[in-house]
Amino acid sequence: MGPVFELPIRLPPKDSRGLLHALHAQLRAAILDGRLQPGLRLPSTRAFAAAFGVSRNTAVAAYDLLLSEGYLLTRQGAGAYVAAVLPRVRERRTVPRDDVHERRLNAFWRGSVAAAPPRIPPRHDFQLGVPDLTHFPFALWRRLSARALRALSKQPAAYAQPQGRAELREAIAGHVSFARAVGCRADDIVVTAGAQQAFDLLARILVTPAKTVVAVEEPGYPPLRAAFAAAGAKLVPVRVDAEGLLVERLPMDARVICVTPSHQFPLGVAMSSSRRAALLEFAQARGAVVIEDDYDSEFRYGGRPLDALQTLDRAESVFYVGTFSKSLFPGLRLGYVVAPPWARNALVAAKQCSDWQCAHEVQDTAAAFIAEGHLARHIRRMRGIYDARRNLLLATLERDFNGWLQPIPSLAGLHLAAFATRSVDIEAIVEQARQQGVGLASLRAHHASGKTARRGLVFGYGAIDERGITAGLECLRALGSR
Amino acid sequence: MGPVFELPIRLPPKDSRGLLHALHAQLRAAILDGRLQPGLRLPSTRAFAAAFGVSRNTAVAAYDLLLSEGYLLTRQGAGAYVAAVLPRVRERRTVPRDDVHERRLNAFWRGSVAAAPPRIPPRHDFQLGVPDLTHFPFALWRRLSARALRALSKQPAAYAQPQGRAELREAIAGHVSFARAVGCRADDIVVTAGAQQAFDLLARILVTPAKTVVAVEEPGYPPLRAAFAAAGAKLVPVRVDAEGLLVERLPMDARVICVTPSHQFPLGVAMSSSRRAALLEFAQARGAVVIEDDYDSEFRYGGRPLDALQTLDRAESVFYVGTFSKSLFPGLRLGYVVAPPWARNALVAAKQCSDWQCAHEVQDTAAAFIAEGHLARHIRRMRGIYDARRNLLLATLERDFNGWLQPIPSLAGLHLAAFATRSVDIEAIVEQARQQGVGLASLRAHHASGKTARRGLVFGYGAIDERGITAGLECLRALGSR
Repeated sequence: MGPVFELPIRLPPKDSRGLLHALHAQLRAAILDGRLQPGLRLPSTRAFAAAFGVSRNTAVAAYDLLLSEGYLLTRQGAGAYVAAVLPRVRERRTVPRDDVHERRLNAFWRGSVAAAPPRIPPRHDFQLGVPDLTHFPFALWRRLSARALRALSKQPAAYAQPQGRAELREAIAGHVSFARAVGCRADDIVVTAGAQQAFDLLARILVTPAKTVVAVEEPGYPPLRAAFAAAGAKLVPVRVDAEGLLVERLPMDARVICVTPSHQFPLGVAMSSSRRAALLEFAQARGAVVIEDDYDSEFRYGGRPLDALQTLDRAESVFYVGTFSKSLFPGLRLGYVVAPPWARNALVAAKQCSDWQCAHEVQDTAAAFIAEGHLARHIRRMRGIYDARRNLLLATLERDFNGWLQPIPSLAGLHLAAFATRSVDIEAIVEQARQQGVGLASLRAHHASGKTARRGLVFGYGAIDERGITAGLECLRALGSR
Repeated sequence: MGPVFELPIRLPPKDSRGLLHALHAQLRAAILDGRLQPGLRLPSTRAFAAAFGVSRNTAVAAYDLLLSEGYLLTRQGAGAYVAAVLPRVRERRTVPRDDVHERRLNAFWRGSVAAAPPRIPPRHDFQLGVPDLTHFPFALWRRLSARALRALSKQPAAYAQPQGRAELREAIAGHVSFARAVGCRADDIVVTAGAQQAFDLLARILVTPAKTVVAVEEPGYPPLRAAFAAAGAKLVPVRVDAEGLLVERLPMDARVICVTPSHQFPLGVAMSSSRRAALLEFAQARGAVVIEDDYDSEFRYGGRPLDALQTLDRAESVFYVGTFSKSLFPGLRLGYVVAPPWARNALVAAKQCSDWQCAHEVQDTAAAFIAEGHLARHIRRMRGIYDARRNLLLATLERDFNGWLQPIPSLAGLHLAAFATRSVDIEAIVEQARQQGVGLASLRAHHASGKTARRGLVFGYGAIDERGITAGLECLRALGSR
């Protein structure tokens, strides 16, 4: 028994996951505060394990950690010994007040509030923008992921391709050409970490702080507004009606115009052909660019496929933004921009500066999933499921709510909005519903300005099944008829 | 045989991967230009397959795609028929000149050049910052990844936790407490897409454009400078000597100071204790913050473990940035910031605004890999391998190059720098070496200013084995003795 065994080491129960942690931390502390002197030879891991009543593996792991940190060294034939480490005394920190610190932050970010904790989903949740994963072919995804990792393990490590892996860009070009008639080649595509990064990168390359006027839809998508606000844009909300953005209300100095023409977020309407033409004409005439956020239009339930603005554009004015958060799953963090040639280098440079590139294994798995036709198949399958939910939602709203909720016609996507037609307190109803286990969103939360907000509700049906829809609407009906 | 079979469809060879693509594209074109009229009933997929000599699966897939796009519709009992699609005529685009377009870009990003194409690695490549993946336990990683995906498939889809998955933050907190004596809890950690995103987010929250003075090391890491430049910082390069950053040369108005104290990039020196103390004193006195980029110090080859600045800090001045690009692999895109409490909400808000969060499957796999001890084991194993390379590199440089290359002492990381001690044309040698299949980096490329640049070379030994080192140095020796 060497001197190491005299250490008073207190360990948690044997089967605890914290055993190794505790062992390591206490040995390290003993080295740091000089109880274990430099040059001291440690017993073999076998002897150590026996002395402390831990498994040999745990002892080896603890030694490994200390070796990896340099607290222990090994000498040929002499086992492990304690390295020469300067003892360290921890003092109490003297901490200035928080507001002194906060002044070191850029004014925009000062006063940011804590991110909401992961929400406990209500029993019946009309959550927006989230697809149903219970039908996702995860087993297939796992196989493709394993294959991608096997292939990656045979490639040299590299930082490369901030634009996105070539195979994924090929697959995306095929997908959007097929699914949305957006004519593009792999070269036109920049892969992003979801649509949010697409907005953020576009804001960075297109906005000159405190100068560039950016028109956004009112109501619209708050995280897009946040990205442009962070870049210093002068945001101008422009109202939306049943034909989409009121193009004639665009400020003349708008340089960037953000729209959701296929399925307006959150109202759900499609932009009419004449508005599309007017918008492109405005952009071309004023040298503005259009950001076309096509976030969920793969799910279409009827009518003719509307041409994307990108398809109609003749002046390289349109950035088309797509995402796999709805058609695959949000945790994937994959989206893309179809960018006009003149902006591509800037966009790729901004991507490289932001995070260099997206995770390879995720990109390669998605590339195989799309290229082998699984995406088209999954979309088709899910469209049937979502369509049934949408029909149930519409029918119930029209049958049971005609007193006070008027659904807004919508032929695509994963949500449906409804205006309140009589004076009910929507925010109070949302809160009461939440208390009864029903998750709903108010239209008001999607307005930049509370003054122009129309009262209403938005129902996501991506992640709620037909039973949930029936139960949730039943609760809502009861609340509204009080 | 219906009218569809009269279409002149030209298909590639049967076993081609493009068969489905061609079939789909031609049917779609026929629908769009009116050759297939709205309401036309298509033959069964079986009949269609037979007629075109394709497999039934291919026919089903082509129909699926067209259905998913809305070009075909199905009617109960009537099979698929052509939807009412407005014919579309594609015109030639009228495209203004590129410089007109480019004026729409923010000035900083205007004139960005195309990203370098993926490089063909030289035969003997002293590439910087890239680890050896031939020893990475990919089979284990695949197993953990499959397990993570299985667990994910049982969770509801969600956008959540921009700060990073709780399990990963736990694992990272354990790892940095162990490996770098950086005392932190999971709450202190913000997960990022590699160190690059950490720099980018910190630049965004800490820099007020055209105002904030940011001191960077000279020589230093260009992508970090790029992130701060993009945020509008006033960059001031501050020289580095054998003890690290020359703290006394810091401009008095520096508000952010970026350093690599454990293993200076690219010189490889460690910042001395007195400089560390002086730097923290400066920061505390002037209300500045320090960004400690600890990119590869898990690989330490002797000497005592140096305290991280984060550990020494008593004033919440230090942001500690770590990455898994060296200890795991770069394609993973995972890094983290240990952030002081006053900045955390802002940092998380900036992360959410940038890309919401990192890919779940990657985070969960890494969490398991770290928590189960595989990271510590892998680091220990690789340290032995890298140490042997480093010893060979040092010994050869000292033996064969004493005429003109002086290695700079360095006890950690994955690269070694050397100053040129006589007048050789380093840039010419780098280029000649490249032509002979040897990849090397000049020190000059890491300077913000060419004027102050010291001449020398940087040798990465993460991704080159001992044979490669010998062969590469032999070539270099011959070039230098001309």
